[in-house]
Amino acid sequence: MSVERIRLETLRHKVMTAEQAASFIQNGMVVGSSGFTKAGDSKVVLPAFAERAKKEDIKITLMTGASLGHDTDGKLAEAGALSKRMPFQVDRTLRNKINAGEVLFIDQHLSESAELLHNENLPPVDIAIIEVAYIDRDGSIVPTTSVGNSVTFAGLAKQVILEINTAVPEEVYGIHDIYQAENYPHRNVIPIVAPWNKIGRKTIPLDPAKVIGIVFTDITDSPADIAAPDQKTSSIARHILQFFENEVKLGHLTDRLLPIQAGIGKVANAVLMGFKDSNFYDLTMFSEVLQDSTFDLIDSGKLSFASASSITVSEDCYHRVFDNLQRYRDKFVLRPQNISNTPGLIRRLGVIAINTAIEFDIYGNVNSTHISGTKIMNGIGGSGDFARNAYLSIFVTQAASKDNAISHVLPMVSHVDHTEHDVDILVTDIGLADLRGLAPRERAQQIIDNCVHPDYREELQSYFDRACIRGGHTPHLLEEAFSWHLRLGQTGSMKK
Amino acid sequence: MSVERIRLETLRHKVMTAEQAASFIQNGMVVGSSGFTKAGDSKVVLPAFAERAKKEDIKITLMTGASLGHDTDGKLAEAGALSKRMPFQVDRTLRNKINAGEVLFIDQHLSESAELLHNENLPPVDIAIIEVAYIDRDGSIVPTTSVGNSVTFAGLAKQVILEINTAVPEEVYGIHDIYQAENYPHRNVIPIVAPWNKIGRKTIPLDPAKVIGIVFTDITDSPADIAAPDQKTSSIARHILQFFENEVKLGHLTDRLLPIQAGIGKVANAVLMGFKDSNFYDLTMFSEVLQDSTFDLIDSGKLSFASASSITVSEDCYHRVFDNLQRYRDKFVLRPQNISNTPGLIRRLGVIAINTAIEFDIYGNVNSTHISGTKIMNGIGGSGDFARNAYLSIFVTQAASKDNAISHVLPMVSHVDHTEHDVDILVTDIGLADLRGLAPRERAQQIIDNCVHPDYREELQSYFDRACIRGGHTPHLLEEAFSWHLRLGQTGSMKK
Repeated sequence: MSVERIRLETLRHKVMTAEQAASFIQNGMVVGSSGFTKAGDSKVVLPAFAERAKKEDIKITLMTGASLGHDTDGKLAEAGALSKRMPFQVDRTLRNKINAGEVLFIDQHLSESAELLHNENLPPVDIAIIEVAYIDRDGSIVPTTSVGNSVTFAGLAKQVILEINTAVPEEVYGIHDIYQAENYPHRNVIPIVAPWNKIGRKTIPLDPAKVIGIVFTDITDSPADIAAPDQKTSSIARHILQFFENEVKLGHLTDRLLPIQAGIGKVANAVLMGFKDSNFYDLTMFSEVLQDSTFDLIDSGKLSFASASSITVSEDCYHRVFDNLQRYRDKFVLRPQNISNTPGLIRRLGVIAINTAIEFDIYGNVNSTHISGTKIMNGIGGSGDFARNAYLSIFVTQAASKDNAISHVLPMVSHVDHTEHDVDILVTDIGLADLRGLAPRERAQQIIDNCVHPDYREELQSYFDRACIRGGHTPHLLEEAFSWHLRLGQTGSMKK
Repeated sequence: MSVERIRLETLRHKVMTAEQAASFIQNGMVVGSSGFTKAGDSKVVLPAFAERAKKEDIKITLMTGASLGHDTDGKLAEAGALSKRMPFQVDRTLRNKINAGEVLFIDQHLSESAELLHNENLPPVDIAIIEVAYIDRDGSIVPTTSVGNSVTFAGLAKQVILEINTAVPEEVYGIHDIYQAENYPHRNVIPIVAPWNKIGRKTIPLDPAKVIGIVFTDITDSPADIAAPDQKTSSIARHILQFFENEVKLGHLTDRLLPIQAGIGKVANAVLMGFKDSNFYDLTMFSEVLQDSTFDLIDSGKLSFASASSITVSEDCYHRVFDNLQRYRDKFVLRPQNISNTPGLIRRLGVIAINTAIEFDIYGNVNSTHISGTKIMNGIGGSGDFARNAYLSIFVTQAASKDNAISHVLPMVSHVDHTEHDVDILVTDIGLADLRGLAPRERAQQIIDNCVHPDYREELQSYFDRACIRGGHTPHLLEEAFSWHLRLGQTGSMKK
């Protein structure tokens, strides 16, 4: 514990244990917590609350930036501490509770949660729990590895609990660009025209009178799970890089490309790593999450600047960045997620968006969230913010999985997160379908020819051909549209 | 013919007949034409081309702002003159050709077509055909009752044909706000913070060297079909107005509300007319199309300003506005559709969006375009631009139609244009479901309780209950999800 991190001395008497802080939370409260894809989440107060909820019948609505680390969502769900959760999660235990109807989940575009709070379209936040590097002399706070929705939570919550994380160096001061748009009807322009523009302040404003507890911790973020590229992800990455190279040849793009957004995971990492040995240069990112690959590209001199809402990296990369902040601090910025993901900026900057699908269909509709139309995996996250407004919207998935018992290219997706209007390019390990300027029937043939696993090509072609005979702008056989999903449920395989 | 409307005298020798102008169009060309929901479309050159195509084997790709008037789309389709059409249409003949697979249709967000052209994600425009009030001395052009995509077509087309419409008074000069964002990566802020902001020029820039023909016409726009509110549309309008009144009571909105977008048709007109006898005042619109109701509200002193891309009104209203332009000219503005519909502005202004659904499902997914998942009606238009980015996204439809043989509230929509993430409020003549802050299972019960026609309530409840037993974040019975649509196809009714 180092009380010097509470630079506003009048707040020093608020230091307490995590258990004491967690005791402020009452049944039925709405709690807004920092944390975005594991980064900068509550390390001790939410876990202490989960412990408390094991013994007490107490439930809250929990809002965050995005997912939490350290199994915190799982511990809360296991303890029955959650009545409602939004806007995103990735936890196995929580997911099971959601799918069982025991926890209500609201799956939101990540740019929108803060808007909904400001507009009073969601119930008000009772308590905010925010991880900070330190409290400044004016009571404003310096966030850690993510900004997420913390600016909104700090501004709107009636009471605030701060977790000072001493594992995060105080030198993070300045890596955040804290800006909030005005409330309606007096909202102005958000004056960002390039990923590197910084338009705000370095700390999050906070009324010290709202601080009810300060807790010290030195637990670092849960590290990202970094899996090496496998054959499939390498193929997908290769298809995308070839596509970019061709777009440069055609004069559509320069070899600086345009700002890149990459979803989380193996494919995104594989694509970004592919740039290392390419002719592309002076690349930029305008994304949600910065992963290891971002910093590798910075180190290799390929990437000039990256904008996002969080840093979610492996333990190695974490130390590389935060032990050498001076080397990286002019190369990236962390923003509130209603800025990093805001539709107007994504369109203004002309972002190239690369996101992962669970499945897509012959017309290019994408399911990012649901297994067989019912069970949620994680959530839509920021994929909709980016895909809708991108200069190019690319979705990737493996063509087939589980010994090819599951095809990820289907007659009709069982749940739609992104409509055909918002999908330009589809990529599997089999190949890439360029859907720009194509009508639905043309899209279908492109996708069948280029993306589907060979084991399923004939049946998919048959579905499409028979649907075309029946007619329609978007030919379908409604009685057969979900037959692949149903067969999987009955036999364990989509194969006939 | 009044050649004074060609103020750039060096262009006067380009005057020709519509047939001569139409003869420039060659097989396989991409033609970009003015026209947005019947307003400001090509009155003579496209029809002359349709005549020509009756005798010749010639086909084009036709892009417009939105729909055309005077059955022009039908004439072109009938003559086999269209290979591809985008981004919107409402014509019965064309629709049948599209659904038969004879014309390829690309159904686009109306804000995006111009972007796709500028980004070279669509093939380049060979010839633009643009209706104008007059040609200014510098060769720039003054559009008529719509702006649509004409700025982009004039800028990018290799050759341009102008239709000077002498039925439109030259005094329309100044009702348009012509602004185009810069190309990537040098795009700047679009500096609009209120519907009445004018940020551009009054004429569309055009290189006179590209003008290959000028044709005179005095045919007015096809009038809008104005149907008086019936019992259902009045009920829907009443539910919405009550909702707004309650939001004001709760302090969420002031009685100025926020800028309103209203889709085309009876319901939108009924809602807007409802404001006439309300306590709301100083209202504004930030919309695509201005209809009769807009000008009625201006006349009644309720509406202060309206921004859109076109004016589509009845014959009476047309004369009221254009014979008295001085009275209205500071009350409205027409913008390019990639400005009127741009996502960033819709979110910045906090627009209240009211759009029409064909059907919606128990989770709040909306189908705006397809009958039974296959046959297109019109197109998504601007509904996605507005619904996704709105402060409040409202969708309306009748609960049931065709003697209640069709329910418009269903277990699962047969086509998704707007996902549950983008839908806040659903309204039928039965009632209003406020879905804000609700998880899928809560949304379903709200919709069943408030929106579905009583004839279908029990079966919809049964579907939902049985799906919940099976589980999932979004409970469904995939084998039964389209059973209502299938029954309709087999028996002519969705009823069991």
